[in-house]
Amino acid sequence: MVYELYYWPSIQGRGEFVRLALEEADVRYVDVARRGASGAGAARIMPFLTARGIRRPPFAPPFLKAGSLLIGQTANILMYLGERHGLAPNDAGGRLWINGLQLTVADLVAEVHNTHHPIASSLYYEDQKREARRCAADFLKNRVPKFLGYFENLLSRNPRGRYLLGSKVTYADLSLFQVIAGLSYAFPQAMAKTVRRHRRLLSLHAAVQERPRIAAYLASPRRIPFNEDGIFRHYPQLDRT
Amino acid sequence: MVYELYYWPSIQGRGEFVRLALEEADVRYVDVARRGASGAGAARIMPFLTARGIRRPPFAPPFLKAGSLLIGQTANILMYLGERHGLAPNDAGGRLWINGLQLTVADLVAEVHNTHHPIASSLYYEDQKREARRCAADFLKNRVPKFLGYFENLLSRNPRGRYLLGSKVTYADLSLFQVIAGLSYAFPQAMAKTVRRHRRLLSLHAAVQERPRIAAYLASPRRIPFNEDGIFRHYPQLDRT
Repeated sequence: MVYELYYWPSIQGRGEFVRLALEEADVRYVDVARRGASGAGAARIMPFLTARGIRRPPFAPPFLKAGSLLIGQTANILMYLGERHGLAPNDAGGRLWINGLQLTVADLVAEVHNTHHPIASSLYYEDQKREARRCAADFLKNRVPKFLGYFENLLSRNPRGRYLLGSKVTYADLSLFQVIAGLSYAFPQAMAKTVRRHRRLLSLHAAVQERPRIAAYLASPRRIPFNEDGIFRHYPQLDRT
Repeated sequence: MVYELYYWPSIQGRGEFVRLALEEADVRYVDVARRGASGAGAARIMPFLTARGIRRPPFAPPFLKAGSLLIGQTANILMYLGERHGLAPNDAGGRLWINGLQLTVADLVAEVHNTHHPIASSLYYEDQKREARRCAADFLKNRVPKFLGYFENLLSRNPRGRYLLGSKVTYADLSLFQVIAGLSYAFPQAMAKTVRRHRRLLSLHAAVQERPRIAAYLASPRRIPFNEDGIFRHYPQLDRT
């Protein structure tokens, strides 16, 4: 089976968490909207969201076609892939634990998006710049330490390795790598201070980055660079220390 | 086994989605923070979030103690309960589908919270009232129709009943009931117009409300009334039509 990932072709966004898992799992997949001529991408996504012929239409990208299954929601896709490709624990309790951590990552990612779009996704950043400054300041002061402190604490409880659980990487580790990479891109000044207090998260970031398949992916054209259309955006005025 | 639910004792909040599932499942549970003298509640929650002795500490309430398992994140708890107590489909594909819908409900709930706290959860509503008005106006104009239209469309595809999938209720149906109840409480004017275009969602709301265990729960003191400390808050100035 060849997986089909459907996600916006020009950003990392939430799709990137799925791409990282597909790459680490070393499975065959097509990033459907990025195939072929540019510009055609979004047109390949929309029919799934609206067509009457789709039995279980997803609410929004990313979604994954896996044979006859069409799976929506990032954490749901990762749970599916993780169980099938060795990126989740074998026991039910461990799987619930990793799913819960992934949902906490999802909460953090939603808050990152709010830093540049606190009023409405339908408005331009320029129309909510002042509010974004207030939102981002609180996010960096209160929320980033809370989230990263939580994960740092979990890592400190694992004597067996640099990952969240035991010695094996899970999809939640890949997602945490992406969060650290994204926050460092979006808020370089604030993160330069913050990471000093989160050495285990930095170590996890490095450990994921050095994994052969991830390293090959990051060096390939398949990895879309961070940019100001995605979730992690670098607006210097939001990066106050 | 008696389940232990840990959630703030004075609000419905995210814990309410779990309470509804526990009630419909007809299982024994203790709403730990609501037991005994008022005021003691939060003190029963905090140790789990911070104590070194907790092997897998949750990030935030709600969390569920199920024997030796401690399960965090609302959708994760519901997935666990749903599979064990007949509130989820039996097949893996159906379970993924319902989990994906629950995560879409979670996204909607987060956006509801943002309508009154668009800048920061750490600030009072009074300190972000102006921004809340802009945020709520966009939410009611663009986001509510998108979310409710999606679920209404799914219901229209089910010829076998008033629920999302076939003829049996799932935890996602219970959660959609709560969303309709909450939106109707928070935005009575806007919702009075909106629900006319979402008759199947209204029918689902009624069907859940009439289920014997849910009806008994709603009539009991176990159901905390909506209030302005929860997620669904009625601030008339945000309820513009």
